[in-house]
Amino acid sequence: MTPRPSGRAPDAMRPVSIETGFARHAEGSALIRVGGTEILCAATVESRVPPFLRGQGKGWVTAEYGMLPRATHTRGGREAAKGRQSGRTQEIQRLIGRSLRAVVDLAALGEMSITVDCDVLNADGGTRCAAITGGWVALRLALDKLVRNRVLARLPLRAQVAAVSCGLTQAGPVLDLDYDEDSTAAADANFVLTETGGIVEIQGTAEHAPFSQAQFEALLALAQAGTVPLFAAQRAAVDAALGAPPPETP
Amino acid sequence: MTPRPSGRAPDAMRPVSIETGFARHAEGSALIRVGGTEILCAATVESRVPPFLRGQGKGWVTAEYGMLPRATHTRGGREAAKGRQSGRTQEIQRLIGRSLRAVVDLAALGEMSITVDCDVLNADGGTRCAAITGGWVALRLALDKLVRNRVLARLPLRAQVAAVSCGLTQAGPVLDLDYDEDSTAAADANFVLTETGGIVEIQGTAEHAPFSQAQFEALLALAQAGTVPLFAAQRAAVDAALGAPPPETP
Amino acid sequence: MTPRPSGRAPDAMRPVSIETGFARHAEGSALIRVGGTEILCAATVESRVPPFLRGQGKGWVTAEYGMLPRATHTRGGREAAKGRQSGRTQEIQRLIGRSLRAVVDLAALGEMSITVDCDVLNADGGTRCAAITGGWVALRLALDKLVRNRVLARLPLRAQVAAVSCGLTQAGPVLDLDYDEDSTAAADANFVLTETGGIVEIQGTAEHAPFSQAQFEALLALAQAGTVPLFAAQRAAVDAALGAPPPETP
Amino acid sequence: MTPRPSGRAPDAMRPVSIETGFARHAEGSALIRVGGTEILCAATVESRVPPFLRGQGKGWVTAEYGMLPRATHTRGGREAAKGRQSGRTQEIQRLIGRSLRAVVDLAALGEMSITVDCDVLNADGGTRCAAITGGWVALRLALDKLVRNRVLARLPLRAQVAAVSCGLTQAGPVLDLDYDEDSTAAADANFVLTETGGIVEIQGTAEHAPFSQAQFEALLALAQAGTVPLFAAQRAAVDAALGAPPPETP
Amino acid sequence: MTPRPSGRAPDAMRPVSIETGFARHAEGSALIRVGGTEILCAATVESRVPPFLRGQGKGWVTAEYGMLPRATHTRGGREAAKGRQSGRTQEIQRLIGRSLRAVVDLAALGEMSITVDCDVLNADGGTRCAAITGGWVALRLALDKLVRNRVLARLPLRAQVAAVSCGLTQAGPVLDLDYDEDSTAAADANFVLTETGGIVEIQGTAEHAPFSQAQFEALLALAQAGTVPLFAAQRAAVDAALGAPPPETP
Amino acid sequence: MTPRPSGRAPDAMRPVSIETGFARHAEGSALIRVGGTEILCAATVESRVPPFLRGQGKGWVTAEYGMLPRATHTRGGREAAKGRQSGRTQEIQRLIGRSLRAVVDLAALGEMSITVDCDVLNADGGTRCAAITGGWVALRLALDKLVRNRVLARLPLRAQVAAVSCGLTQAGPVLDLDYDEDSTAAADANFVLTETGGIVEIQGTAEHAPFSQAQFEALLALAQAGTVPLFAAQRAAVDAALGAPPPETP
Repeated sequence: MTPRPSGRAPDAMRPVSIETGFARHAEGSALIRVGGTEILCAATVESRVPPFLRGQGKGWVTAEYGMLPRATHTRGGREAAKGRQSGRTQEIQRLIGRSLRAVVDLAALGEMSITVDCDVLNADGGTRCAAITGGWVALRLALDKLVRNRVLARLPLRAQVAAVSCGLTQAGPVLDLDYDEDSTAAADANFVLTETGGIVEIQGTAEHAPFSQAQFEALLALAQAGTVPLFAAQRAAVDAALGAPPPETP
Repeated sequence: MTPRPSGRAPDAMRPVSIETGFARHAEGSALIRVGGTEILCAATVESRVPPFLRGQGKGWVTAEYGMLPRATHTRGGREAAKGRQSGRTQEIQRLIGRSLRAVVDLAALGEMSITVDCDVLNADGGTRCAAITGGWVALRLALDKLVRNRVLARLPLRAQVAAVSCGLTQAGPVLDLDYDEDSTAAADANFVLTETGGIVEIQGTAEHAPFSQAQFEALLALAQAGTVPLFAAQRAAVDAALGAPPPETP
Repeated sequence: MTPRPSGRAPDAMRPVSIETGFARHAEGSALIRVGGTEILCAATVESRVPPFLRGQGKGWVTAEYGMLPRATHTRGGREAAKGRQSGRTQEIQRLIGRSLRAVVDLAALGEMSITVDCDVLNADGGTRCAAITGGWVALRLALDKLVRNRVLARLPLRAQVAAVSCGLTQAGPVLDLDYDEDSTAAADANFVLTETGGIVEIQGTAEHAPFSQAQFEALLALAQAGTVPLFAAQRAAVDAALGAPPPETP
Repeated sequence: MTPRPSGRAPDAMRPVSIETGFARHAEGSALIRVGGTEILCAATVESRVPPFLRGQGKGWVTAEYGMLPRATHTRGGREAAKGRQSGRTQEIQRLIGRSLRAVVDLAALGEMSITVDCDVLNADGGTRCAAITGGWVALRLALDKLVRNRVLARLPLRAQVAAVSCGLTQAGPVLDLDYDEDSTAAADANFVLTETGGIVEIQGTAEHAPFSQAQFEALLALAQAGTVPLFAAQRAAVDAALGAPPPETP
Repeated sequence: MTPRPSGRAPDAMRPVSIETGFARHAEGSALIRVGGTEILCAATVESRVPPFLRGQGKGWVTAEYGMLPRATHTRGGREAAKGRQSGRTQEIQRLIGRSLRAVVDLAALGEMSITVDCDVLNADGGTRCAAITGGWVALRLALDKLVRNRVLARLPLRAQVAAVSCGLTQAGPVLDLDYDEDSTAAADANFVLTETGGIVEIQGTAEHAPFSQAQFEALLALAQAGTVPLFAAQRAAVDAALGAPPPETP
Repeated sequence: MTPRPSGRAPDAMRPVSIETGFARHAEGSALIRVGGTEILCAATVESRVPPFLRGQGKGWVTAEYGMLPRATHTRGGREAAKGRQSGRTQEIQRLIGRSLRAVVDLAALGEMSITVDCDVLNADGGTRCAAITGGWVALRLALDKLVRNRVLARLPLRAQVAAVSCGLTQAGPVLDLDYDEDSTAAADANFVLTETGGIVEIQGTAEHAPFSQAQFEALLALAQAGTVPLFAAQRAAVDAALGAPPPETP
């Protein structure tokens, strides 16, 4: 079996760090680094909801995703200059939004909306997964601020959510693809999971040849183990930001 | 367990039919009906490839997706009038394109591109899955024409591909969601499979609460069984169109 | 005199058929076929009017037009992907809307609007004319539904309206141009008429050389005769859909 | 019979004047005034043709139309700021382009294109007609310059073309509608004619009720007479600009 | 020292004329000519303000800028057709708007907005400056109309404002650049001044090499002298339009 | 005289730091902090020039500017989602581009282009000035890389360029406006200067009342002194990145 380009073991995550407070004006923010991937996540609270939700007493959580033009090896054109967001961008921001909404109690949030902006400063594979993992921290801090300001009685958050990509490469099934692996993997899958092992989203794609159920389950097992340090990093970042263990999320 | 709104058994597909030749000018076309969902798929062959592939001797397969404004219960605005395709539209057409490409031997196709247009005439759930299933027939017929016209020596097609959606509903895990089920399911997943059981794409989404690995595997099992009649319908449509069993696809 | 490419007599319409109910969710729909041209017309009723009409107690009727990318010999780019509707599309949908409005009693309709979507599934010349002819049936059925649901006391419809194109070709003045004739005619004209011979719209264009008043009147005479079977097909389709002759339109 | 709002006789044109050379950089230009309507027409010659014509040895003539925001009673939004040209604008510029092309010998022009920009400085009805009448002068002068510069051996122009609108109003059939009449006429029609009476374009629209063939022919007769002074004004403007009667246009 | 291309003295303005009333529907209008530059300025009064000002009892003044496609040596594409205003256009219209606002008492105007459209009919350098100078006249006349109609008790105008460009050329520091000078100057600066010498806007740009404070002050001195005839022309135009000296602007 | 909101002396810059290498893929990058304003500048080298420069043997330097949605107190909509860059954005990126080009020897650069992306991560006033100051460092490093890789024989850079804003506030003329001051200043001006005191760009704007020449010169004097530490910070950052004093810039 060929070794991985990075020399990592098949089940090894890259180093993860989450720094909070980088976006000084945001209600909650997290600068997440997963290996060479670096994303600034900023949560904004607004006391109104999109038209389709008005008057229902429920809140909304959504996400937007962007990449600085030179976050990548070669410069990508600025979407604002092109006049439209690419299909890839829209697909990713819809995924991040769904993933975060899945663990929020929208009724308990009330008629407020939270937008989580995820902007990639440096890209080295796995940006959508890192955006979800970091986005949860930004969201968590913004919700905490609502509790501390007595806008909400309790955190309307049911679980932690984090994500990781796995793939079938020449090194076999591996965890946490970097850019080199991502661009050559025979198949890859993104897993969005809760800290209790619940599945929030699965996206698996055969790039070159169909894969088998057994292969898919191997990737899922890698992801289940691989998200453990992500959940720990989330909790550590929240603790550091709030000066104490966060209130239990039921 | 609550029965399904349609009264179908949990593992029952809706009636499927595939009519070929509806788009008279297209190199291959298929009008697929899955219950109340009706999609016109038309394949166009062009002897050029996108810029990023030029000079590599390889072909390309892509898809575009649209919905007539009144394919749905309430009229949806026309995307051409709005001036942009929605994120949903782009996500779906990227999925269809990837799914079809996964079974095409792009090197054997040579520097030609095939665009499969999938336009929803009537919608009742499962449009992206039906588009893949019908799109394969349109693609197959267009490729056959290239073989008959001696542009290609053999069909550059590795497998059949078809898709179905499954979901966790009040009736438990069920096959082939219609609109009523799709809009209320706790989770749903789209499975794009080959006729030999290979997995091409998996997209699973928890709408309300995370789901377990066991639940996910129940959905996959439903899909594996549920695609059997889809593959049969594809073969029957191709046979009817070509007047004889199609050449073996290796 | 050269014969027509299709072998038709100069004053011969192509076969016409109108099938209702194809768009299952629409308040009224008609799939019209005129020779190889095939258009799905779907009428949508909404209980609001555009801003410029609000508070005047009058209704509105408008139309939108689109063409599936592969309705034509060579694939046309999807307008939704290009981000704008072409001048041709806008010109046609404005014509359809004006033609239908001309026979509706907007005051009797009240503050409701009806949008008639006309989507070309297969194109072989005369699409704007077929869209008007089929669009009237969709509109008629949608209005009938409002009468049956007692939203309206009577049909707010003054007349039938149908359209046909005529042209000066190498075969002389001819009725109902197909694509081959349309692309080579020296002049062509679209006539939108009522069943009592009233003129709703005339659009005549010299493609290569100016034409004379006498030539123009020859085209008008062809159109007057040529629309007779169109009005009959409209009445037959409405009768078949409603199970009885429609109430008199004054 | 009610008199016209302007007091004009039913067959009276408004005063017409055409001033050349206003757009100093253009190869040909004409500032046309028809009553209170004032349009600056400027012709630009470029030595290339649109892609669909390349290599055919033929030229192209096209037109663009715009209206200054405050050419009208109430300010209209600037199309450049809205990001799209309205359907009305596109319809009008397509009409102007077709009308001018109909009298140009495109083969004799060779692989050059002429764009005639028609910008409405003040609007009081009939802008599309005045744009055609003035546009012909700008085009004529630009072609003359090509002849004087020996780029072309002779004027590739077959005829003069001018346009006028007529309508059915409370004063009966009338010539040359101004804004007040245009907005209340029961029907109106634009006639694009050559100086020998040939018909280039006819666009007739029933705004409120269908009209009869006899009514239509009355409008056409008004237009035939009404364009006589327009052709004279065109010739006078060209003579004044070129210092001598123009060469015969065959 | 090389002479100027036009032969003008370094401190010589080109001839200036301002004709009012050209845009017949506008509340105020001015056609300004500065040498070969010709701009139609039209002011529109509307009794509403942009959202960010609502309910504050204050008015708004803004400007829009456009250039006819053939105002220039070579034809420029129509921004409405391109679907977006260029950065240059937006920069200029923002400058005009700020310059006019700076001399208006927005509180005294009350909740009304005035839009000044500046459309370049012929361009020969200095269009943004001429637009400001002419735009002030259009604005002044529109405000006067509000006073005469007793909508306002007094003119909410604090000063006259006019603008001129100066530059460092091969002829040294010169006043009022024309196109030839503008495209080759080493540096140029636009000065927006009041008739009492106050500075409203300064925009100085080194095109090829940085310039010194002394050079900059030489340009400012030219501008201070050069705007004197502009202010006189503004007053003469207003006097001519209103038939008497305008009321004092405090 | 009122003290400044920040308590700073009128001629006090905020703390400045410049960190290089943050954008790991860029040919040169600088993360500049000026007080609470934080901008990531990344330079990209490409071996082609825009169409208008092709074949002239000269290079090009341009800039793009963006702001993360939550760089500000309240979230700003994402320009990529709106489909257009604002006038403000375009104005700023044109200013940055001109400022950098003014100190580059484009002929010595040869047919290459350098794009400097300036993305605001946190905003507290003065973003366009900080972008110029930081952008120069990114550009300098990218050019140095071309020299080290022997693509260029020497640095094609004539000077350092940096920028600062000054304004007339309740505290009198002050240096380096922060957000609070910027939004309430009576006038403000941006000065783009070289380290030898040359003026590259001046933009002065009276927000409420015209200002005098003396006031303007006071602002310029503040800027001349205030840019001294900016030039020092640029040199320190370049030295730190390159491990030695940079080669002399002539």
